[in-house]
Amino acid sequence: MLILLTNDDGISAPGILAMYHALTELGEVHVVAPETVQSATGHGITLSTPLLTSQVTMAEGVVGTAVDGRPADCVKLAVNQLLPRKPDLVVSGINSGANVGINVVYSGTVAAAIEAAFLGLPSIATSLLLKRGVPDDYAAAARGTMVAIRDLLDRGLPAGEVVSINLPALQPNERSRGLKYCRQCTRPWVDTYEKRLDPRGRPYFWNSSVFKLGDTDSDTDVAFLRDGWTTITPLQFDLTQHRLLKQWQSEGE
Amino acid sequence: MLILLTNDDGISAPGILAMYHALTELGEVHVVAPETVQSATGHGITLSTPLLTSQVTMAEGVVGTAVDGRPADCVKLAVNQLLPRKPDLVVSGINSGANVGINVVYSGTVAAAIEAAFLGLPSIATSLLLKRGVPDDYAAAARGTMVAIRDLLDRGLPAGEVVSINLPALQPNERSRGLKYCRQCTRPWVDTYEKRLDPRGRPYFWNSSVFKLGDTDSDTDVAFLRDGWTTITPLQFDLTQHRLLKQWQSEGE
Repeated sequence: MLILLTNDDGISAPGILAMYHALTELGEVHVVAPETVQSATGHGITLSTPLLTSQVTMAEGVVGTAVDGRPADCVKLAVNQLLPRKPDLVVSGINSGANVGINVVYSGTVAAAIEAAFLGLPSIATSLLLKRGVPDDYAAAARGTMVAIRDLLDRGLPAGEVVSINLPALQPNERSRGLKYCRQCTRPWVDTYEKRLDPRGRPYFWNSSVFKLGDTDSDTDVAFLRDGWTTITPLQFDLTQHRLLKQWQSEGE
Repeated sequence: MLILLTNDDGISAPGILAMYHALTELGEVHVVAPETVQSATGHGITLSTPLLTSQVTMAEGVVGTAVDGRPADCVKLAVNQLLPRKPDLVVSGINSGANVGINVVYSGTVAAAIEAAFLGLPSIATSLLLKRGVPDDYAAAARGTMVAIRDLLDRGLPAGEVVSINLPALQPNERSRGLKYCRQCTRPWVDTYEKRLDPRGRPYFWNSSVFKLGDTDSDTDVAFLRDGWTTITPLQFDLTQHRLLKQWQSEGE
């Protein structure tokens, strides 16, 4: 199995290294990832400037390709130019921080996986919930991701489909409650900004929002992740709101 | 009516100015837009750095607020901090270039409109198809957008819903064939990259893809726009692939 591994935290992030080691159980893993942190860059791509690439040796001697672009650029470039053949699976992560609820839309980790699905490949994003007082254990998160990936491969993950996995925050003695296939919560976060003045009196604003896994319906990714499950959500890139479209089309034009 | 107007081409782009003048027919228009071009930035947001703002006088004496951030930042900040009250409508555009098919996912113009829908507002993105040999007429595109907006307001555009309008490329003596409510084409573009070497022998890659309104099903935004219609597509931000989710849930966990 040829696996493309990317992320949005950059090629030197601990999550991608842990995922690399876990994925070698399944096949040959090629790392093509952003040179720098690309968190919350959404589904940006680079069209008007060139993409520079370099071979880098990550921790523990793993060799990968760094791209000075966005997560989706890495997938496009890897599939089009860098890999010896079309990969059998694309994995993006492990992201430092959950990608549940409306964060799915902002996430570079998820954007890379969606890009791979556009290109007709089976694709998986994986993200670890961070929680104060719980150590970030990416090796454990990679093992948890592998449990989910094996379940997906057993069911059959079709080409062109993309799935987002989220791992709960667990103390060293805790275990995930299991795998939960569930939908994305679509409730908005509550945004807050702090207004400040620069030394010359010009106003500027810091986003001070606290993204809490709070109130949600009981059947969503947000609820199950908060309650200690490993969540699995299949995603789509048809953004058409079909219900409203049908209504308007039936009203005539 | 209080209207927030933003875009992704930056506050000094011709499309936003044309849209400003057209929207004043409907109410009071506040411009809050990126300071610089943000094309293909997708749904990025700014969390770790501050957002600087400045009052700018655009062409023809129109005053707006420039934000050194992404399109979605502009909407968040405007609604949360800058506007006197919650806007009745958010408009993003007119984008220089169509946002149909899979480009909907990359588009900063559409991301700004989706952000407004998250926040519970009725919201519209508008984009003009560019075509070699056809002059870009943003005043005409703004008039065409207003025809679509009036149709949407007559039907009732619910709060929290977002719609993407695309205007065809028209010669000065041509007219749009009319409004067409239709779905997003989900076929991928064919990516191409040119590999080059920098003066020191390091490889770099330019995206050389030509995004053509080519083969597609006959009922999509891509097809109708190519054929000279003004397309209207309601969008959603629930990315769950519900069909696959139901199948997997029914298989048991």
